[in-house]
Amino acid sequence: MRQYLLGPSFLGQSRITLSGKESQYLTRVLRIKQDQSFAGIDNQGRIWDLKMDSIGRDSCTLSCSQAEQGKAKVATDTMPSYAGPFPRIFLYQCLCKGKKIEQIVRQATEIGVEEIVLVQSTYCVSDFSNKSEKTVSLRTERLESQIKEAIQQSGSPIATHLNERVLKLTEVPGHWNKKGLGLFFHQSEIPDQKSLYGLLKDLPMEEPIAILIGSEGGFSDEECTFLETSEFKPVLLKTNILRAESAAIYAISAIQVLLTEK
Amino acid sequence: MRQYLLGPSFLGQSRITLSGKESQYLTRVLRIKQDQSFAGIDNQGRIWDLKMDSIGRDSCTLSCSQAEQGKAKVATDTMPSYAGPFPRIFLYQCLCKGKKIEQIVRQATEIGVEEIVLVQSTYCVSDFSNKSEKTVSLRTERLESQIKEAIQQSGSPIATHLNERVLKLTEVPGHWNKKGLGLFFHQSEIPDQKSLYGLLKDLPMEEPIAILIGSEGGFSDEECTFLETSEFKPVLLKTNILRAESAAIYAISAIQVLLTEK
Repeated sequence: MRQYLLGPSFLGQSRITLSGKESQYLTRVLRIKQDQSFAGIDNQGRIWDLKMDSIGRDSCTLSCSQAEQGKAKVATDTMPSYAGPFPRIFLYQCLCKGKKIEQIVRQATEIGVEEIVLVQSTYCVSDFSNKSEKTVSLRTERLESQIKEAIQQSGSPIATHLNERVLKLTEVPGHWNKKGLGLFFHQSEIPDQKSLYGLLKDLPMEEPIAILIGSEGGFSDEECTFLETSEFKPVLLKTNILRAESAAIYAISAIQVLLTEK
Repeated sequence: MRQYLLGPSFLGQSRITLSGKESQYLTRVLRIKQDQSFAGIDNQGRIWDLKMDSIGRDSCTLSCSQAEQGKAKVATDTMPSYAGPFPRIFLYQCLCKGKKIEQIVRQATEIGVEEIVLVQSTYCVSDFSNKSEKTVSLRTERLESQIKEAIQQSGSPIATHLNERVLKLTEVPGHWNKKGLGLFFHQSEIPDQKSLYGLLKDLPMEEPIAILIGSEGGFSDEECTFLETSEFKPVLLKTNILRAESAAIYAISAIQVLLTEK
């Protein structure tokens, strides 16, 4: 663990008590001892210096102070790494089969995506619209725990957030609400299409970017037309036809690389 | 399947007979009928127009003619996609645990890596040096079949090749033999290190590039020093600390994107 992800119940208190699984994770799995200091991140992406104050049988208490200049005093893993800036990437990901979507969510979090929104499109093999509430909430729970683990392990300074509801593709432009550049990735070229480099070259680092990735079957012609009229720009990746889980990480990497390396 | 991968026994004959699994795959899984045409690629990356001449009980015969100008007449999946050029990437990948290495090999093939060489380094959790011959050959077989499936599904014009032997890290520079730019990716910055963009910006597309990716534990200080004295250049990815399987696809994508988009 490079940083401990403070849950939504943490609101900036100077002391918090954890119990059950959370306490066990810190004291038994990571074996954090009394008085040991370590780094934390809250779900707004703020960095905290944490100290283990006391360890009980099924609970523990931490003292928390916000890190100065956004840098933790003690990183659990002290290996230096890239400290930013990070482009602000919002991933709209069409549903794929179970394990694939978990892999996408986990890797997108590692790389530093700000928000992940799952989308139901025409060619989705996996359809959640008719699933029971329990199935849907179990899936959400699994994805949330993938995100949490990825933030803790990668030391990402971005507290990736999973949108609680699966959107229909037609709801995507409304949800995005033109906050910044909107892109959708597909395999065929549309006349007069700009290159990814062309779309990004004059973009400031702080401009939010939405990227919409299809399911295993890509997008239908109607969906492409709808997206273009909604000011989402088509992008052809200059590579082979990738499986959905490879396309997602390729596209996120491509945008991060083009913006951070330029 | 976008193209059928012709095995190593194919040497450019105008007719070949397939039997067993290969015949079953074409006739029963893909249900290719008599006289049906489809695209093929051989293990030198040459594209072939194939036609099903006859189907027997446990074998089938194909007629093969080399595609004109490297383009197959009939693509099984007719979706247009990027047709190249592709940078020539050679992946030296340190061993990771079972499923991870399969995912890396599969995704590297999809994206279009020319050769994959597995490497044993200090921090490899997975050690194959003391495994039985049978275990090693089973692993190779599994990876070969991942490569084959990925070439067929992605329609990659690059017949990715797996080096038959696992190298020690110290053997990597000799194996690469300065065929082109050599890079190794690690998480900490070395003084005066060039950016990936800086290393690639004046590189011609046809120049071979070796990329060496660490195992879960990265490289030791001794390994870094050894690699630098062997003219491998260190690269810091401008992202979070990624797991080995994410680092591999991120690095391959980054190089492909920087070279194809520039």
